[in-house]
Amino acid sequence: MTVSTGNWFGLVETDLEQMTDNLQNLVAAKHPVLKEAAEYLFRVKGKRVRPAIVLLASRATASKGMLTDRHRRLAEITEMIHTAGLVHDDVIDTSDLRRGMDTVNAHFTNKIAVLAGDFLFAKSSVYLSRLGSLEVVELLATVLEHFGEGEILQSVRQFDPTLTFEEYIDKSFYKTASLLANSAKAAAVLSDSPRDVCEALYDYGKHLGIAFQIVDDILDFTGSTAVLGKPAGSDLQEGHLTAPALFALEEHPQLAVLIEGGFANNGDFESALKLIHASRGISRSRELAQAHARQAVQVLEVLPQSPARQALSDLSDYVLDRLY
Amino acid sequence: MTVSTGNWFGLVETDLEQMTDNLQNLVAAKHPVLKEAAEYLFRVKGKRVRPAIVLLASRATASKGMLTDRHRRLAEITEMIHTAGLVHDDVIDTSDLRRGMDTVNAHFTNKIAVLAGDFLFAKSSVYLSRLGSLEVVELLATVLEHFGEGEILQSVRQFDPTLTFEEYIDKSFYKTASLLANSAKAAAVLSDSPRDVCEALYDYGKHLGIAFQIVDDILDFTGSTAVLGKPAGSDLQEGHLTAPALFALEEHPQLAVLIEGGFANNGDFESALKLIHASRGISRSRELAQAHARQAVQVLEVLPQSPARQALSDLSDYVLDRLY
Repeated sequence: MTVSTGNWFGLVETDLEQMTDNLQNLVAAKHPVLKEAAEYLFRVKGKRVRPAIVLLASRATASKGMLTDRHRRLAEITEMIHTAGLVHDDVIDTSDLRRGMDTVNAHFTNKIAVLAGDFLFAKSSVYLSRLGSLEVVELLATVLEHFGEGEILQSVRQFDPTLTFEEYIDKSFYKTASLLANSAKAAAVLSDSPRDVCEALYDYGKHLGIAFQIVDDILDFTGSTAVLGKPAGSDLQEGHLTAPALFALEEHPQLAVLIEGGFANNGDFESALKLIHASRGISRSRELAQAHARQAVQVLEVLPQSPARQALSDLSDYVLDRLY
Repeated sequence: MTVSTGNWFGLVETDLEQMTDNLQNLVAAKHPVLKEAAEYLFRVKGKRVRPAIVLLASRATASKGMLTDRHRRLAEITEMIHTAGLVHDDVIDTSDLRRGMDTVNAHFTNKIAVLAGDFLFAKSSVYLSRLGSLEVVELLATVLEHFGEGEILQSVRQFDPTLTFEEYIDKSFYKTASLLANSAKAAAVLSDSPRDVCEALYDYGKHLGIAFQIVDDILDFTGSTAVLGKPAGSDLQEGHLTAPALFALEEHPQLAVLIEGGFANNGDFESALKLIHASRGISRSRELAQAHARQAVQVLEVLPQSPARQALSDLSDYVLDRLY
């Protein structure tokens, strides 16, 4: 069943708008260029799935479902950390475009991008320490460590067709799901929730994040340049093997030769794309994403029934809806 | 009176050696290139003034002068944060050499340098949270914020002869002294010291750090290429005005014209260097460094007498000794 976006979004729409305004103030910088970079970064009022999860996890666990200032701050910190990670990723990957917009390194310079990312990480560390929970500090610090591990796992196995599914899922956890898992758990910690509820929200974020990443990886093959803001198959072209390619490799061993060769010959890349589309790679990836989304919904059962719990559940449908 | 290095160093020599070995284990990374970068970074067993201050501040405040594991970990974290800051600074300033050695961005790539810096910041955040003191987390997180502010203050006023002394001292505090001030105070916090002792160690680190920076800035003019690992006057050439230039500007207004022009004409930079050497800029800078070093020693008087307190005091002589 296809569920409309409104279901989960309505409950936190006002909170998210408030957060966006507040983010601009929180990262207010003295340097005019850094101020400009921050405004550039927080200008796009997208869906903001990450802080939405934190706010919903907060409402689902807080006493009487009431958000506290600390819950709101945690949502802001989560968005800051996510943004800082993107900015440095784009420097590391020398990317020029993200969602059809110039990246910070392209719009400004590498120098400004390194500085802006560091500044956001530093600000988020300071605000984190002021939340008054060492456990929450450690949860979010672990996310930063995982960002690095994920980037490493990705870069060390470029153009390597022996990459295992386990390594791919690990990489997806480190780069995407860890932030969702640890920040959702942190929301429950701030609510003084029992341990099983804290762990359930961690598992929710983990499975939802992995589903989210697999969907992204499918869209990289099936989306149009206009929607993706980059050409289809970009990940593969850069040697990053994702679920559709890994499944296709099981059916078409000749794909391994093309990948290992780095698509050096004219037409190699196009042949690889054809093999993937001719395989069951996309449909099996979709099934895998669905399985993780289902697991995300299941673990929510330890939480008491509430509109926020329902919204978290609907959100997992929304993640899959992006495929249709 | 010139004091030999041994006086302050002897007391923590074994601790520092142990720390250096331990740092390699703490930042052990899965990625072979990142492992290589970490080994490259921690290979040089220099004087390690920063962790030495933390260890001495710990001994000067701890019960019976005994270092705890938390004190040792704080010293390691301080060195990690310092190193991460250097690595990103070199990316931002596109520097190729540091102390006569290739920088990480030059020896490896910008990509590895951004990643290695992020990884060290992340590791230090995780270890910080495990120290179990929110106050210590906030003190060190503030250092990260100050690194950014310092880099900003520096870059926004390049080639600007209207830079004030206050701005120069602020920049020196943010870039250099904040780490010494906040980590020395954190050592006292971990010792459960009374507030006045914590604040005294903050002030000690602040004044020592500013003295240290001024001495560095003098050496940039008076040192040889062999000692500096870069040509003399490098800071000035890049438009960074430091104490000797700021004092010289008061005597020689024509220096302002050369700076503002960015040394565009042949011989401009050499003329500027001559004006600075002909002025009282260097000697007045030396006096300023001495004044800050004296203040650092004075604030130590609230601490009980101990070999560690004496070593901290001797360290301020050592900072000045680098000038002779």
